[in-house]
Amino acid sequence: MLNRQVVLKSYPTGVPLPEDFELIETSVAEPGEGQMLVRNLFFSLEAAIRSWLDGIANYFEPIPLGGAIRGPSVAKVISSHLDGFESGDIIFGLHHWEDYSLSDANTALLSKLSPEPDIPLSYYSGGLGGSGHTAYVGLHEIGKIQAGETVLISAAAGATGSMATQIANLRGCKVVGVVGGDDKATLITQTLGASAAINYKSCGDLKTAITDACPEGVDVYFDNVGGNTLDAALQCMKTFGRVIGCGMISDYNHQDNPTPIYNMWKLVERELTMKGFLLYTYMDKVPAASQQLHEWVRSGEIKILENITQGLPNAGWAYSEMMRGATIGKNVVAMDLRPEESL
Amino acid sequence: MLNRQVVLKSYPTGVPLPEDFELIETSVAEPGEGQMLVRNLFFSLEAAIRSWLDGIANYFEPIPLGGAIRGPSVAKVISSHLDGFESGDIIFGLHHWEDYSLSDANTALLSKLSPEPDIPLSYYSGGLGGSGHTAYVGLHEIGKIQAGETVLISAAAGATGSMATQIANLRGCKVVGVVGGDDKATLITQTLGASAAINYKSCGDLKTAITDACPEGVDVYFDNVGGNTLDAALQCMKTFGRVIGCGMISDYNHQDNPTPIYNMWKLVERELTMKGFLLYTYMDKVPAASQQLHEWVRSGEIKILENITQGLPNAGWAYSEMMRGATIGKNVVAMDLRPEESL
Repeated sequence: MLNRQVVLKSYPTGVPLPEDFELIETSVAEPGEGQMLVRNLFFSLEAAIRSWLDGIANYFEPIPLGGAIRGPSVAKVISSHLDGFESGDIIFGLHHWEDYSLSDANTALLSKLSPEPDIPLSYYSGGLGGSGHTAYVGLHEIGKIQAGETVLISAAAGATGSMATQIANLRGCKVVGVVGGDDKATLITQTLGASAAINYKSCGDLKTAITDACPEGVDVYFDNVGGNTLDAALQCMKTFGRVIGCGMISDYNHQDNPTPIYNMWKLVERELTMKGFLLYTYMDKVPAASQQLHEWVRSGEIKILENITQGLPNAGWAYSEMMRGATIGKNVVAMDLRPEESL
Repeated sequence: MLNRQVVLKSYPTGVPLPEDFELIETSVAEPGEGQMLVRNLFFSLEAAIRSWLDGIANYFEPIPLGGAIRGPSVAKVISSHLDGFESGDIIFGLHHWEDYSLSDANTALLSKLSPEPDIPLSYYSGGLGGSGHTAYVGLHEIGKIQAGETVLISAAAGATGSMATQIANLRGCKVVGVVGGDDKATLITQTLGASAAINYKSCGDLKTAITDACPEGVDVYFDNVGGNTLDAALQCMKTFGRVIGCGMISDYNHQDNPTPIYNMWKLVERELTMKGFLLYTYMDKVPAASQQLHEWVRSGEIKILENITQGLPNAGWAYSEMMRGATIGKNVVAMDLRPEESL
């Protein structure tokens, strides 16, 4: 049976371009002992994937030229030789950009989903998946937010940032978001509950803009971008402030030449805590996060922002758009199912 | 009565020079209600003082031109109108570089000492004072060191570093020290218990040198210097490694132009925790630290390294020597007492 796959054609320079990816045709593998065959339904496009495209080891192995792009997906089990999973189950896991993947007990992020009929299945690839869980765990376990605190969030209209903005707001924090466009600024203040938005592309001096929006200083900075925004935020932290190191997307397109940080002295002077985290480490916190996020989504208190691209052949283009900062909310690739596939 | 004072004559450019300081003569003030008059005996020279010499607010007010240099001292109470203190008490507190100071309940770091007759009084300005307490609190409360861990310490032959090196070694850690000279390298390995020493001035690539000394990575980095050493250390941390932000002396001589840090991505990738601290915040931990340090000093398990300069007129010179990295261990100015002063 045909299995289309998106592979890495060339190592990107800077922002990945659509032509760095290539669609090839292979055939579906047979699941062996302990494996299951899954049909991918929705791919979650994630900034972290960029760090696997340079041929350099990071916290995962790099993707070689010609290798399939690794990415998390919501998928349906077609056949299973893996205990605990059976045909028809809906799962989440770190698969590859292809029609069908093999999954086993070592698949990163593997979990069985219990999708609710009134909730779009795509949500489980983002707001009710890794992005939402990351935002929730970051704010609570790493940042230890308290009601009344001022929380600064970068990439606040992005997949994780848009969830973090809403969660912190629901927890009684004052939220200030940093975004890269006036449309995004309007969105986070009018729809997501942010008290103020800063467009880093037009605000002038970023430290001044943050200080104006947070005159008493920042208690918690949820950092999705690193670079200049982190450097500015360090100067605006309150004593004992906490920095949640979630991502540094501003450097992902040029990791060989990262943006310098000049204000590390604030770490000592203001007795800051900076703590980086990856969701994989906090899987025991996900069930409670998931339950709370479901409640908020069902009640309408949280809105899931999605930017859905149709069809595996467009995955590379969609990823390029995301990595140049052109999109809002969670970027998802919805698989183009063939007529003979009845799910 | 004559009171000699060292004041700031000019804002230093880079390393402070002896001529940036000036000895002037004033007269001794009368202690008012709630105050006491103290005779300074030993001044603790500290890198942090450098940050008060640029005329820019930091975590303390800047010292104005013509203003007395602020610095912690061991002192003897001459007369007291402050509850809990009486003539003859030996105290520690943040005073000024002068013969006699006024002290009151708001004096930073104020504490009554119980010096032991078999221990040199000068130790209470360093190894059994702020430097020792900082090293102890940093390793235990911030770094949470565990036996068997690899601890990297910068400025390992300095006042705080030499104490941290010995404490971590006594706690069963493997200690690797970064120093700025072969004499210091020999000292920390042969006398202070470090497993290895790296001379950053001659080792070539610092990341490579740290990796060679810590092939399995660094669990805890006790950072006294910031800058290039911090940047190299970030690349050598184990997953879940901790960075103790104690000081950033490499930038103190040019705080308007700090050394850029390029490897902040490691914070996320390796899920690091970086935590800055000032001893003032952890005064409740000092009694236990002091008791343990006394035991180790008495048993000979900890050696207090001192570099004592005689006489208030030489304080500026001594400070300049320290800030250009020419000294080993704790820098102390022993006051030149006048014949009529019987202590």
